[in-house]
Amino acid sequence: MIDLREILDLEILLVFAKYTVLLTVKMMLMSLITAFYRMKKKAFANPEDAGSLGKGDAAKKFVRTDPDVERLRRCHLNDIENILPFILIGFFYSISGVSLATATLHYRIFFASRIFHTIAYLVPLPQPCRALAWFTGYLVTFSMVYKLLVHVLSIS
Amino acid sequence: MIDLREILDLEILLVFAKYTVLLTVKMMLMSLITAFYRMKKKAFANPEDAGSLGKGDAAKKFVRTDPDVERLRRCHLNDIENILPFILIGFFYSISGVSLATATLHYRIFFASRIFHTIAYLVPLPQPCRALAWFTGYLVTFSMVYKLLVHVLSIS
Amino acid sequence: MIDLREILDLEILLVFAKYTVLLTVKMMLMSLITAFYRMKKKAFANPEDAGSLGKGDAAKKFVRTDPDVERLRRCHLNDIENILPFILIGFFYSISGVSLATATLHYRIFFASRIFHTIAYLVPLPQPCRALAWFTGYLVTFSMVYKLLVHVLSIS
Repeated sequence: MIDLREILDLEILLVFAKYTVLLTVKMMLMSLITAFYRMKKKAFANPEDAGSLGKGDAAKKFVRTDPDVERLRRCHLNDIENILPFILIGFFYSISGVSLATATLHYRIFFASRIFHTIAYLVPLPQPCRALAWFTGYLVTFSMVYKLLVHVLSIS
Repeated sequence: MIDLREILDLEILLVFAKYTVLLTVKMMLMSLITAFYRMKKKAFANPEDAGSLGKGDAAKKFVRTDPDVERLRRCHLNDIENILPFILIGFFYSISGVSLATATLHYRIFFASRIFHTIAYLVPLPQPCRALAWFTGYLVTFSMVYKLLVHVLSIS
Repeated sequence: MIDLREILDLEILLVFAKYTVLLTVKMMLMSLITAFYRMKKKAFANPEDAGSLGKGDAAKKFVRTDPDVERLRRCHLNDIENILPFILIGFFYSISGVSLATATLHYRIFFASRIFHTIAYLVPLPQPCRALAWFTGYLVTFSMVYKLLVHVLSIS
């Protein structure tokens, strides 16, 4: 059996940990921005959230959707749909015996693609800016998937 | 290069595994409660789900949104947005050389904050109960992020 | 203290990595299918996405929901709600000292249940096909949770 300690390169895992932190922070900031916009636009999801703006029917009229808030929420959900798979795949990729340079390149391109995706979504930039940003990150994850499947299937 | 086995403390990882399990179970129970309320309130997302209540147009009238079901779904999505980042960050935090007491304190406060968040969301308690519960968990995750960035950046 | 290296079986971890990759790929394909259906049904979430179909008001009429697109999105969200917890729980389960045969059985049943769930959701098959597929995967995750809690609680 192959020894995990032989292929486990701590430096790659550290670099991967850094990008996991950066991507997670980026994703979690979407919650904060959404909360800020809900207050600015007075568009809440729950009657009790609008409590400071009035009671009963006065509060209820602030339970509504706002285009900017919905855009932020779609951007946040897109992060969840793409960043979480990247982190899970990336973890196994980082301990798969790949070189530090190749791994770092994958992590950097993915991170840049998600930052650009968010900018393209929130400005919003004309298409296909956002589509290309999303697809770049998607391809990076599938590049890691390809490496892993070749590696994993060759052993087990 | 630092040896991963030197900083890898199994006891912290075990405690972290316990909280991962508890938080995931809590999150997955939301699916069950939502399914239960969809049946109780007769508010389904798909025509085929209401099949037992009638055929065709009779079933279609049960394809509707219900305030209580939507509240449960928002609570579930908020769990996904907050618990999954906590677990991903927490994994690297648990192998970052932190002390068992500090790590356990982080996990416990986060877990308590999410339980209180769910209670505050579903009762619902007046604001800022839910906002404070959410923010407490958010701060715990960022406390781990801070520790990790200082640690990771000091090496790589 | 128990030595992590003694219970860490690389072969189980490799098999688990394979199922993590397969499940993540399955989940990420939902994004691609949704994007395809948004174009086919001309039902977009953002005005800029419909830019090639017209400008201004001409584009705005394609910012709408479509039953097939919404069905795909619900199926994707259900994957997120169930596959991500499975992977997080499954990781700790795979290093918990379980036998390779038992672990592989869990991974296989879960994977099959999610494939069948997607088919049942998108055809759609009459209920309780989808409900049973979902519940099978749910039970597999809770079987791993049970093993973990017994294991984790017996040590820490």
